Amino acid sequence: MGVEQHKELLGSIGVDVDRHAKMMAMGLDAYKAQFLGQPNRPKGMAYFDWFMSEIQGQRIAEINQLRAEKKPAVGTFCIFVPEEIVVGAGGACYGLCGGSNATVADAETELPRNICPLIKSAHGFKLQRTCAYTQSSDFIYGETTCEAKKKTWEILAKHHPVHVMNIPHMKREKDLKMWQEEIAEFKEHIEQVSEKKLSLAEMIEGVKKVNAKRSALQRLDALRGMNPDIMPISGKDSLFITQVGFMDDIERYTQKVNELCDELEERVREGVSVFPANTPRIMILGTPLAPPNWKIHTAVESTGGAIINEESCIGHRYYKDNVDVEGVTSEDELYARLMQRYSKIDCACFTPNTGRTEKIVQMYKERKADGVIYYTLSFCHTYNVEAHLVTEALAKEGIPCLVIESDYSPEDAGQIKTRVEAFLESISFKQKAQAFASK
Amino acid sequence: MGVEQHKELLGSIGVDVDRHAKMMAMGLDAYKAQFLGQPNRPKGMAYFDWFMSEIQGQRIAEINQLRAEKKPAVGTFCIFVPEEIVVGAGGACYGLCGGSNATVADAETELPRNICPLIKSAHGFKLQRTCAYTQSSDFIYGETTCEAKKKTWEILAKHHPVHVMNIPHMKREKDLKMWQEEIAEFKEHIEQVSEKKLSLAEMIEGVKKVNAKRSALQRLDALRGMNPDIMPISGKDSLFITQVGFMDDIERYTQKVNELCDELEERVREGVSVFPANTPRIMILGTPLAPPNWKIHTAVESTGGAIINEESCIGHRYYKDNVDVEGVTSEDELYARLMQRYSKIDCACFTPNTGRTEKIVQMYKERKADGVIYYTLSFCHTYNVEAHLVTEALAKEGIPCLVIESDYSPEDAGQIKTRVEAFLESISFKQKAQAFASK
Ligand code: SF4
Ligand code: SF4
Ligand code: SF4
Ligand code: SF4
Repeated sequence: MGVEQHKELLGSIGVDVDRHAKMMAMGLDAYKAQFLGQPNRPKGMAYFDWFMSEIQGQRIAEINQLRAEKKPAVGTFCIFVPEEIVVGAGGACYGLCGGSNATVADAETELPRNICPLIKSAHGFKLQRTCAYTQSSDFIYGETTCEAKKKTWEILAKHHPVHVMNIPHMKREKDLKMWQEEIAEFKEHIEQVSEKKLSLAEMIEGVKKVNAKRSALQRLDALRGMNPDIMPISGKDSLFITQVGFMDDIERYTQKVNELCDELEERVREGVSVFPANTPRIMILGTPLAPPNWKIHTAVESTGGAIINEESCIGHRYYKDNVDVEGVTSEDELYARLMQRYSKIDCACFTPNTGRTEKIVQMYKERKADGVIYYTLSFCHTYNVEAHLVTEALAKEGIPCLVIESDYSPEDAGQIKTRVEAFLESISFKQKAQAFASK
Repeated sequence: MGVEQHKELLGSIGVDVDRHAKMMAMGLDAYKAQFLGQPNRPKGMAYFDWFMSEIQGQRIAEINQLRAEKKPAVGTFCIFVPEEIVVGAGGACYGLCGGSNATVADAETELPRNICPLIKSAHGFKLQRTCAYTQSSDFIYGETTCEAKKKTWEILAKHHPVHVMNIPHMKREKDLKMWQEEIAEFKEHIEQVSEKKLSLAEMIEGVKKVNAKRSALQRLDALRGMNPDIMPISGKDSLFITQVGFMDDIERYTQKVNELCDELEERVREGVSVFPANTPRIMILGTPLAPPNWKIHTAVESTGGAIINEESCIGHRYYKDNVDVEGVTSEDELYARLMQRYSKIDCACFTPNTGRTEKIVQMYKERKADGVIYYTLSFCHTYNVEAHLVTEALAKEGIPCLVIESDYSPEDAGQIKTRVEAFLESISFKQKAQAFASK
């Protein structure tokens, strides 16, 4: 529907229109099958269901309208992009498609098979020209966080403009200083693209908008996960809302998330939960969950569990910190504040990264969770190696943990479901044993 | 033999003596089987055969003698370590064991299966305590080049002191400036370990010794590979000599390599080749070849090919550049010269890394090679992704290229041999067709 109306636009930005239409139809079917049948969904989800239907339609038209006005359109694959600057310039900063198995085979004509599926999927979308966001981008914003991405930019640059930012892998003072320079350079690059100077006031305005978005997501996080007895929204719906946050118009989105949160507050007051009492409350730790990768959420929530938080870049790691602009009077000061905020991101690409483990344990206790699933995309070395230290720390705290490594192929879905089922049963058994012991 | 005499020493540095003896016996057997039967080996190889027998014996005693004198003993896994500084301090800087399959299973108790075998092997040697070099090290020198290593240091640090250097992944001016600071800090760390100030004169002395070693290896490289009709030494022997260069006493080693080169010069004059005329001359490109990983050399040279160069870190990438100390009068100047030299290393961890491709083509033409094998260790993302751009450039030049990705398990040896055989045949066929056409 959404796509049909915009065929002409899609063709004009180089989208392979027929293939794209087929893929979108598949995506919508998957969404309908996995989302619409959930019991007692909040009314506010109607907006996000609508967004899904227009994800490669109206939203693409909006972005191209911005471009027509010389506003920057920046595609990203990492939460280190200072989107505040793009938003300050009146542009759109969005995550590119990278969660589908349908583009992986094409990517493998240029990339090794044994790298992370997110990268392969994204590269395949470009080769196929089936992601309208990619086609709408002035440039793709790359970074040096993980090596498979870092090296893939060199190949992707044959097909699309790429701007690469050097993210240091340590957080000593000198590393952060270098990082701050990268942020300043990014701003210059945005000015080049939009052919217009960007003022401090505009950038601060951008920060405020992104802060408001993050605050809305923090609110959602608390409402869904901080009440052990009432879970007013499913983990899958919450994940999808977060995913939409990487694509939607920032002000409309913030408003819609806040409206939904009003409804969830009402539900909490009235004791309306979408899960039965004693449903095991699970936190997901690990790598990003790009749409339409809903595999782990579907596995858990169709097997008697509830997901109450994603310690992931499409999740808590993305929205947990705001930028403090109080009293900022110079651009350098603003860059320093941005850098301080971004350096709090505890991506496994850093060494050491002990803060992440401490934060996980704290989040677990705050949410009175019942277990965690450490979920990584296949061949993601940093998160996979770090899993050893994280799970060691969790074991010391007696926190039940299941480690799952998976790609986008549907083949392991059955096996994952079986493992998740056994994990949830062991948690329920423990809960019952504890309840019995405390009688 | 070598090991037997040093049992007490080995025990005192924490080596698991019995397990170590068994592994060494296996290693020696493999060496005998793969090296000693080669036809017409140069007399100078006797020294390297002896070194192999004492690789975990007398050489370990020598290193521990240095330690008794408070000289630093530094174990490494990367050619970015400024070994000039360690040598200047009178110490030993050596590559640690990381080429054996026998330690991989142990490593997999703490590391993911799907990371590079070099890292797993090295970690396993530490867990098993079967590498006397590791056990002799004041510290292991880690770096942030590749992410599996970078994250493994965090786990290895539970078992052994590790010092990590932050290598930038770009080579802009500001990256190199940061790198230079890392070199200065490394020097301070060496001073701490040896509890002694290190003078500029001592460091320059260290540079000169390492330059001399590199020059000897450059000489060997030219002798083995630059004469299309005469190959006075096998590729496998040349590789082993290079491998020994990462372990041996630097002055003795340099002398022995130069003595061998004298003999090879004589052979070139007299037309003595260890390969028949028209043997296809192959260059190996890619990841490091740590002993006892002789897999690809054995496959090629037992199938009618000759390896004339390794564009690898245990190879050309290691010895190609010397440090210019002409006119250096301050420590900072020396660090700048070291940085200049080290920044010429075209490791695939850098982005972009186009210089590497250009260099490969140039080396190929200089050596009048007949083909290349792009050899990578499994799951080495940077070299595996870069392979696409390198092979694309080689194809444009009409250079025959075979890509092999392999780990340390013996399982794929048969398959590799078959592929190598077919590749060499296609080269021979091409040679004959060209000879016929030019008649
Ligand atoms: S996991 Fe790390 S590299 Fe990936 S999106 Fe998050 S911050 Fe970026
Ligand atoms: S999941 Fe891991 S390997 Fe994949 S893009 Fe993110 S950091 Fe890189
Ligand atoms: S390939 Fe790169 S990371 Fe590995 S040893 Fe060489 S320079 Fe170091
Ligand atoms: S071969 Fe590749 S993955 Fe292995 S240690 Fe070297 S750079 Fe890292």
